[in-house]
This record gives sequence, C-alpha cells and structure tokens, in this order.
Amino acid sequence: MYKELNTSMRTILTPGPVEAEPRVLRAMCTPILGQFDPEFTAIMNETMEMLRKLFQTNNHWAFPVDGTSRAGIEAVLGSLIEPGDRVLVPIYGRFGHLLTEISERYGADVVTMETTWGKVFDPAAVINEIERIQPKIVAMVHGETSTGCLQPLQEIGWACRQMNVLFVVDAVASIGGTDVKVDDWYIDACIGGTQKCLSVPSGMAPITFNSRVEALLLERKKIERGLADPDASYSTGLGRSIRSNYFDLSQLMDYWGPARLNHHTEATSMLYALREGVRIVLEEGLEERFSRHRLHETALVQGIKAMGLELYGDPACKLPVVTCISIPDGVNGESVRAMLLEDFHIEIASSFGPLKGKIWRIGTMGYSCRKKNILHVLGALEAVLIRHGVDVHTGQAVQAALDVYHGEKPQ
Amino acid sequence: MYKELNTSMRTILTPGPVEAEPRVLRAMCTPILGQFDPEFTAIMNETMEMLRKLFQTNNHWAFPVDGTSRAGIEAVLGSLIEPGDRVLVPIYGRFGHLLTEISERYGADVVTMETTWGKVFDPAAVINEIERIQPKIVAMVHGETSTGCLQPLQEIGWACRQMNVLFVVDAVASIGGTDVKVDDWYIDACIGGTQKCLSVPSGMAPITFNSRVEALLLERKKIERGLADPDASYSTGLGRSIRSNYFDLSQLMDYWGPARLNHHTEATSMLYALREGVRIVLEEGLEERFSRHRLHETALVQGIKAMGLELYGDPACKLPVVTCISIPDGVNGESVRAMLLEDFHIEIASSFGPLKGKIWRIGTMGYSCRKKNILHVLGALEAVLIRHGVDVHTGQAVQAALDVYHGEKPQ
Repeated sequence: MYKELNTSMRTILTPGPVEAEPRVLRAMCTPILGQFDPEFTAIMNETMEMLRKLFQTNNHWAFPVDGTSRAGIEAVLGSLIEPGDRVLVPIYGRFGHLLTEISERYGADVVTMETTWGKVFDPAAVINEIERIQPKIVAMVHGETSTGCLQPLQEIGWACRQMNVLFVVDAVASIGGTDVKVDDWYIDACIGGTQKCLSVPSGMAPITFNSRVEALLLERKKIERGLADPDASYSTGLGRSIRSNYFDLSQLMDYWGPARLNHHTEATSMLYALREGVRIVLEEGLEERFSRHRLHETALVQGIKAMGLELYGDPACKLPVVTCISIPDGVNGESVRAMLLEDFHIEIASSFGPLKGKIWRIGTMGYSCRKKNILHVLGALEAVLIRHGVDVHTGQAVQAALDVYHGEKPQ
Repeated sequence: MYKELNTSMRTILTPGPVEAEPRVLRAMCTPILGQFDPEFTAIMNETMEMLRKLFQTNNHWAFPVDGTSRAGIEAVLGSLIEPGDRVLVPIYGRFGHLLTEISERYGADVVTMETTWGKVFDPAAVINEIERIQPKIVAMVHGETSTGCLQPLQEIGWACRQMNVLFVVDAVASIGGTDVKVDDWYIDACIGGTQKCLSVPSGMAPITFNSRVEALLLERKKIERGLADPDASYSTGLGRSIRSNYFDLSQLMDYWGPARLNHHTEATSMLYALREGVRIVLEEGLEERFSRHRLHETALVQGIKAMGLELYGDPACKLPVVTCISIPDGVNGESVRAMLLEDFHIEIASSFGPLKGKIWRIGTMGYSCRKKNILHVLGALEAVLIRHGVDVHTGQAVQAALDVYHGEKPQ
C-alpha cells in the first residue's frame, strides 16, 4: 500500500543538513549490536577517543548525545544551570537566541548582549561584561550559520578561566570544517553538530567537557530510580538534581563510563555513522580538511563576486563554511531558491529574523564542499538570476572559480 | 589510522535493541534531503499517516521525537506536567520507576502504587486510586520488558476519560508486536519504541496524542526566541511554558504542522528508517504480525518448558514478545549469557533491580522473531546449560518447538 522510499538526488549547499558522505551512509547499513555487547562498548570507547581528536582536547569526556544538535546544547546547559544561576549570552545571530531560550527554560538569570547581525564581538567587550555581571556561565556560538560569522574565542576563554567562569561553546556549525581548539581556547564544554561539516546525518550531537564541568555534574548526580541496588538508599527529592532525565550528563557519564549503567538505548546506527564520519575526518587530516574548505570557499566567493553579486557580512569575521549573499533589490529570493531546487536540484538557504528575505546562504560543508558542487551552483545561480531579470555579468562566475581551482588566482 | 567498522553478526534475542530489518538498514542508505525540501516534508506527512495506523488512532498528531524511546516519554510528560501537578504512576517493573523519575524531575507531585514484580494491576485497584487521589495524569507502562508482563489498559483508560484525567501510556515494548489500540483504550498520549517490535534502530520515539492533550499544549505554547517575526511581541518569562526546548511538543507541532517553523533539524536517515519499518509492519498487516509474534512465542515457551526450565511471572499477563526464565539455583546467569554470546553469537538479557541475577529474558520482537532464531537459541541454551552442569532434559527443547511449527501441538 505504501511504496518504497524513492527520493531525488539533491545537491545540498545549505548550512546543513548537507549531503552525507557515501561511506557514512554505508556504515549505517551495518547490522545492529546489542548496547552492552563488548564489541559495541568497544566501538563506544573508540568513538570517544576519535571525538577527543576532533575537538582537539585531552578531556576524558567526549561522547554523543542521542538527539539533534540542540539536544547536545540542552544537555550541556541543562546539566550545568541551576535555577537562578547567572548566564551571559553574547548574541550575534539566531543561535545566540537559542542559547538564551534554553538557558531561560532551565531557570537561569540570563543576561544578553547583542551586536549587529553580520558582525561578531570584540573579545574585550565580552570580557568587560563578564567582569561586570560575574556570571557562572558564558554561552556563545562559535560559527553563526544565520549570519555566516565566526567568533574568535581564545581571549574570552582565557578570561573566563581566570575569573572561574564556565565557558560553553556551540560549535555545531564549525566542527570538522574549521579549527575548534577546545583546550587551547579554554572551552569548558563544547557541542558539535553532525549534519554539517562532518557530513553525517542529523540525529546525534557530539559533546566534550572537562574536569571543571565534571566536578559540578558530580555534585548534582542522582542514580535513576529502578536502577539503584535494592538495598541502596537514594534521594527521591529534586534537590539540586538535574531537571531532565534524558539530558542528565551525570547519568550519561555512567552510561559511557566503566559502570555502563543502563540509561537510554544507544542509537546504534547513528553511532556507526558518527564513528565513520569522524574516522573520515581524521583520515583526511584536520589541517588538510580545513584547507579544502577554504579552497572551495574561495572559489565560491570569487565566482559570486565575478557575477556581480554582493556578499553580506563583515569579511574580517567570515565563517569559512557559509557564504552569505545579499539578495539584489527587487528580486524574490524564495522564487530563486525554488527554481534552483526544481530545475537544478540544488538547495541553498534563506535566513531568519531580521535577515529573512534579505540574504541567501550557501554552505560549503563536509562532503558537499567539493569542486563539482561549486561549479554547478555558480552556473545554476547565474542561469536562474538571468531568468529573474537580474543584470549579472554573464559567463564570469564559473570562470572565476575555475581560475581559483587552476591556481591562477590563489588566495 | 582507524579501521572501517567490522562487526560480528549477532542473533539478538533481548527485549531490545533487536536485529534491524535488512530493508530498514538499506533505507538508511538513501541520500539526504534538506529538511524543508518539499520531497522531505511529504515524507514527514506520509510518516505521520502511517504512524496513525500503527497506533490504531484517528489522532491528527502522530510523529517521532528525535531521540531514543525515553526521549519520547520525557517529551510527553515534560510537556504536560506543570510543577505541582499530581501524577499517578502504577509501578510493576523498572520502567514504571522511569515514569516516576521523569515526572518528579518535571516537578510533579507523584503518587505511586506498586504491585509484585511479575504481576500486573487489577484495573479496579488503579481506578480506586485515581478516584482517591484525583491526579491530573495517570502514566503507565503497557508492556514491562523488565518483568515480561502486559497490563490491560482499556478499563483504566475509560475511567480516566470519565474523570477527566489524562492517560499517558508507554507502549515502547509493545508497539508493532501486540495490539496497542490508542483510541479504543482511551489513551490520550502514547509513546512507542523503534528498536523493539518495529526492528528499526534506536534513535527515534514515535508518539501520538489527541486533542485533549493538544489543548493543554497550546495553553503553554511559546514561539522560540530568534524565530518570532521581528515586530511580534512574545513573552520572555518562563510562565507556564514547557521546561525543555528540545522536548517542547507545542513547538514540535509547529515543525510537523503546516507552519514548518524551524526547530531541530529532523534526523533524516532515522526518519527514512522509521518510515520503512512502519511500512513493513503495515504491509505484513497488524493482525498477521501479532499472530506471527504469538506463534514464535509459543514455540519458544514450549521449548523452554520441555528443557525443564521454569518460566517467571504470571502467565495470565504474559507479554507475548518477552519470555522470562527463572535461572536455576546455583547457576551463574551471567556466565551462561557470556557463553551464549561468545560461542553462539546469541544475545539474551538479564534483568534489573530485584530480578537481577534471578531471571533471563528472551525477546521475540520484530525481525528477530523468526523460526531460525527460536530453534537456534533453544539448541544453544541447552548446550550451554549442559556445559554449566544443569540437569536439562536433553534433546527435547528443539523438538517441542518443531512440534509447534509443524502444527502438531497448536496452542
């Protein structure tokens, strides 16, 4: 009565989800192992080891939360925040608002500071605010896909460490596409995303946190009802315990640690996918991978400029894996996107809030970030804009990108 | 540096996760579509339609939560419970404790009632308690995998409806393996599991809820910061809003409904897997599928008895997809399980809490529930028990199961 799945083959150049690596898709076909099968727990341990390398950290704790990226963010913030805790969120795009929203829901006294969309914060301004309001936590986005900006973090991290403030970073969009140096930047807890530069489908959120975070989690730890030994006593009151059961990192530590206490049933196939995705990243090499992302970004940017379009955002803080383009006056951005999808099977993105209808966003992330796609999108965008009556410099975009690839205009 | 995934092929006869359907694994290899691609939103809508049939309901709302089964439970309870709400949880095994734990964490005034593990509640006892304590919600497990028991629900559901109490049912273990009649049993919100009788990997939790639940959710609804139109005003205070952002069913309704408001990024490959798993269930037919589960359960039970082992639990309320066996005196249950896994590549389960070390549990769920596996586990268990010095009736278990399959002793 229902047919087999039969989908179109898209070229996905949004800031996520992007095309999954074919080897990752294949890894998901691997038959299931039981969650406490020694072969499976060995895969869990190995994945932790690989995630440490991805996050450039010596932290012991590095594992995925079984949910999409914001599940990882909620697990970290929800496990750290106690009602009334002060949290500083510097906002420079849509996802800073999400950090605020989640923190508020867990009862934090949230203080926000905002800067113009399309720019990032001067670290000194953030540090001044930390000194002034003395928060327990600073929560910040590293790569804002909504505006295509990348926030420098090291100075802020160092200041947090000096003032004994916890520094939580949302690196969902940047992990695997550009440097995320958890230890060097003094990040206490960091959340990555799978469906962007790792080219693993959405559904898991790799996180890492250090011993400062662990100490706080252990203070709030509570063994789950029905799991404690029959004779053991345990608190039944809420007390300081973490509000969510699913996102309780203290319980997840017991699931990912040697105790192997039953919590959720690990999402087997997604773990296989994550392991394969990170394996491919490490096989390519972090530096080599980041260089590849910069090369294709350059080709795309040169092509967009050659066409006569304008980039949106401050180039000094451009996120190398997302390129934002101002929609020319009088052009219906959604009509352009629809034609790209329908006629060329290419997906690019629009944006949110104040940028809705003002910019297009093209992601160059992970497996989607390759020459074939860059040349394809430039040619297609030119054709669609001509069809929409836009006066573009015809024939130049693809040539400019080819120049970059052929090394004639190295950036 | 890291090798490709290379796992053993296990026969998984636990109460989950069980072997994934090969067609489900294959569906996960389907390339990604963007989350707002019309082809993908059509798949989302179609999956909702298929889930309604699975849950035997006319509810509009039927969609997966992106997380493991307990994510679905937390989404339902966490979206309904406001601090101080009274919740009644009748407990007859480990997962009743989980419902209690989650409800407590969301600030409920939880009242529990317990019955001996291995039995279920007389509906009249539960109804008396509802009348006495007047809860807002009754939360109950349908199939308790920890004890292998199945709780009749219809009378309790009818009583809840009469008294205007919300009836929330955890059908994680039963959905797709035995009847779960959401409408006929007056269930207001129901949570299913993927990794058991649907034979889809863990990582999604299909749920359904009716208009009584929807009305309550709409009262607590709040548009996410950063998504509201720039000019719109919205409350920033917590108020009655739902505590979790990730599990906020009022926001998930806007993601799964025509508004298509951005929330998480739907877990594409897991949705493909769920759609394929439910498609296969509907293709087999619910009645035919439940009969198949009963046939293999009968063969297993006859084999276990013929071997001279004792079943655990009250046969009157046996969960047809889990068979519990008392571990013979003096036998180390974990040693038996380890030998089954190492020598025969078969996984069976132990249990929790008061049943730890006392019983083995064999699941007959979904794709794992087939003749090959039943005959294999009976032969292997006999061999392992002989090796452990247990005085079993040799050679009889497999014969008893074959008798069932050959129709000589129809049950």
